[in-house]
Amino acid sequence: MKVDMIIANSFLMTMEGKGVGMIENGAVAIKDNIIVGTGTTQEILSTHRAERLIDATDKVVMPGLINAHLHSAGALFRGMAQDMSHWMQKGLWPLAKHTQEEERVRGSLLSIMEGVKSGTTTFCDFETPMNEIVGNYVKIGARARVAEVVNELPDTIGALPVGELYPFDPATGQRKLQKNICLMEQWHEQENGRITCLFGPQAPDMMSKELLLELKELAEKYNTRLHMHVAQGDREINQMIKRYGKRPIAFLDELGYLDQRLMAVHLTEATKDEIRLLTSKGASMMYCPGAIAIIDGLVPPVMDFVEAGGTAALGTDSAAGNNSINMFNEMKFAAILNKVKRQDPKVFPAWLSLRMATVEAARAIGLDHEIGTITKGKKADIIIVNVDDPGLRPVIGDPIRNIVPNLVYGARGHEVETVIIDGRVVMEKRKLLTIDEKQSIIAAQDVVNQIAQRAHDDIVGSESDLLKMMRADYL
Amino acid sequence: MKVDMIIANSFLMTMEGKGVGMIENGAVAIKDNIIVGTGTTQEILSTHRAERLIDATDKVVMPGLINAHLHSAGALFRGMAQDMSHWMQKGLWPLAKHTQEEERVRGSLLSIMEGVKSGTTTFCDFETPMNEIVGNYVKIGARARVAEVVNELPDTIGALPVGELYPFDPATGQRKLQKNICLMEQWHEQENGRITCLFGPQAPDMMSKELLLELKELAEKYNTRLHMHVAQGDREINQMIKRYGKRPIAFLDELGYLDQRLMAVHLTEATKDEIRLLTSKGASMMYCPGAIAIIDGLVPPVMDFVEAGGTAALGTDSAAGNNSINMFNEMKFAAILNKVKRQDPKVFPAWLSLRMATVEAARAIGLDHEIGTITKGKKADIIIVNVDDPGLRPVIGDPIRNIVPNLVYGARGHEVETVIIDGRVVMEKRKLLTIDEKQSIIAAQDVVNQIAQRAHDDIVGSESDLLKMMRADYL
Repeated sequence: MKVDMIIANSFLMTMEGKGVGMIENGAVAIKDNIIVGTGTTQEILSTHRAERLIDATDKVVMPGLINAHLHSAGALFRGMAQDMSHWMQKGLWPLAKHTQEEERVRGSLLSIMEGVKSGTTTFCDFETPMNEIVGNYVKIGARARVAEVVNELPDTIGALPVGELYPFDPATGQRKLQKNICLMEQWHEQENGRITCLFGPQAPDMMSKELLLELKELAEKYNTRLHMHVAQGDREINQMIKRYGKRPIAFLDELGYLDQRLMAVHLTEATKDEIRLLTSKGASMMYCPGAIAIIDGLVPPVMDFVEAGGTAALGTDSAAGNNSINMFNEMKFAAILNKVKRQDPKVFPAWLSLRMATVEAARAIGLDHEIGTITKGKKADIIIVNVDDPGLRPVIGDPIRNIVPNLVYGARGHEVETVIIDGRVVMEKRKLLTIDEKQSIIAAQDVVNQIAQRAHDDIVGSESDLLKMMRADYL
Repeated sequence: MKVDMIIANSFLMTMEGKGVGMIENGAVAIKDNIIVGTGTTQEILSTHRAERLIDATDKVVMPGLINAHLHSAGALFRGMAQDMSHWMQKGLWPLAKHTQEEERVRGSLLSIMEGVKSGTTTFCDFETPMNEIVGNYVKIGARARVAEVVNELPDTIGALPVGELYPFDPATGQRKLQKNICLMEQWHEQENGRITCLFGPQAPDMMSKELLLELKELAEKYNTRLHMHVAQGDREINQMIKRYGKRPIAFLDELGYLDQRLMAVHLTEATKDEIRLLTSKGASMMYCPGAIAIIDGLVPPVMDFVEAGGTAALGTDSAAGNNSINMFNEMKFAAILNKVKRQDPKVFPAWLSLRMATVEAARAIGLDHEIGTITKGKKADIIIVNVDDPGLRPVIGDPIRNIVPNLVYGARGHEVETVIIDGRVVMEKRKLLTIDEKQSIIAAQDVVNQIAQRAHDDIVGSESDLLKMMRADYL
């Protein structure tokens, strides 16, 4: 068979089956945007003829990583809200209130570049203005599953007041909903299917029951999923009890929200009973280890979710919280934070991190028919990771293999050399081929310089922990 | 003044004072191996003339990182003992027992290369055979503070038996002690003072009281410190109670061990009272967040140690446990694991991680008169970190600065471009100038291939968790 590309002589990690599906000295054949063959190098070379042969000796070939939850524009505020209390009110809000939509679009490209350069091929981006941000994914050539942020909070609300019940503004809700519908109409299944759309109710406490039901109905109509923060913190629980006398998951259950369409983000405050309810109904969990550790000092109950039979995926959340849109970072944190939470080194082994960033993630976001494993017939979203690095050597294969622990506990992301998305080489020798990286960085930096200037007085007025650190020479 | 080198236009983080000592648009002047001037670029350029001018625009210039505890030869077994119980007995021992001394020397170079390439300039290496391993530090040009591992355990003991009291063999103890003394005699203060030596009692449970006292006396005689694991696990506590009826720290106190000379590693099991005792006597703590999280699923009480007024330093421990000899990894883990332990995002701020890898580390290992800050008169151990990277952008300086959180929560180590040790450029544009990196990797890989072959039957016989994972396609 004549194909476009063969990647040969690799440690091929297909992620098929229950483990990592390792084929030593493995090869993949790609034609157009599809994987048309996998097997040993000998098998593939004897049955395929390729336009281009990539030698992946001393390299791991694996499915592109899936970032199941991020807010890409958060990169604008990277490093500006850590080690503090009230990170949203005192850290981000004084900056965010001075930020314009086109500036958010520029900022989002930083997150996407960082992600692709560390092996992410699919981004579940939950952001506004998504109708414009989606253009970044088109340009860079990444796969994206995107939602516009929908809530019913009046624009004048500012940082969310603590304690009081939020006011809802139905007109604002409808305006934001229309943007999400417009996104769906314009972009769903576009770019050869590389762009797909979700509905994005921000959280159960941030809109009326009516709007939640409208979104649910739309998700059914367009046969897509709902990307939504659920049980993400005390504040949400308090709002829901005050408004409805119920915790969020019980409330969502009454609304008929708990099914396979629900991609529930964080679940930091979910109890074991609530988790059993979620998993029994088929909802999936988006787990963001780094962000929740840095912002809240907590480890969400992902192990309970997995033990209850649920499907969970890893996400970076926002660079404004986590500082990092690098799934290698996230895989490592997931494993280590859960070992520490359970005080057991066997908990959350390396292979589970790899699965939650590939095959399980694909299932959790509803794209497992297309991506998540290296399987004949699936889309060619593939990364090549160089393990010939002092930090990843030695490599042994017999009688045990050390590649899986080293990818999770040792690799840093910069070992990713080549990124192929939908059959197209988007990064090679660590250089992005589809955009001008330097120029994109400068554009984002310019924007932030202006925001910081406009926000100056508000930041100074916030008297945040960070400002005190700055004055005392700790920053 | 005529100098050899000026590094200008940088974010200069001197680490002086109580914080990070940031000088925006700062410069450093170096003559021979000494820092001869620091200040703003204007100040330095107007008073110094340099042979070589390095432009560090968009770069952070900071003290080289100090890895306060590692076992460098552990890189031989990277990724071969994670996610399992009995990591020492079933993971490492089946390999270690088939490993020869010259093979350990080759393996150690992997750790050192990984460390230097991620900004480490000083290595507190606790390893055997140190008389030979020290040659790697000489060759690569790093600063090292080294100890030979001394214990009194018979060579035939193998993996330490659980439950029984270890037998001691005084002849073995004396043989190992002589190697440590020989190291001290041959290498202490050599290579322009770049190599200094410590005594290395492995742990209080692994030798007789008599040998411990002999080591203490030698440390006094040579006016150096003792690098020693203390309260590192249940097993040690049980041995000490069984043998002496005392917990290790109380026992060491009776022996007069608790003073400034003691560099106590791990302290995983130390109580608050024991920590107060240690800090009141001036002993320092070597804290290895990643290794202890992966091996034990625990977070040692470093915050208690700091709150009790003690001096603590970060270390990577062995790549056989931690998988990583990268201090950027360690800085991030230290901050995040302690936030989670205390369930408070304000705990262990980024600046504290930076200090525990530089100025506090220098104090903890007794080299603060020479290194740890960028200060006139100190040795020129300096790294240059590029922050013009999609994962570290944007950079803002006013009214708050985001560099410190980004270095700790965002940087991965590969952003280190240049490493200067004792005034000599050891790495430039990420290329090691002093050794053949490729050749050194191949040499280590060859050695491990042979060990894995020799160890084959013992690994298979171990029936470890890893072996089961391997058979089930999880590795």
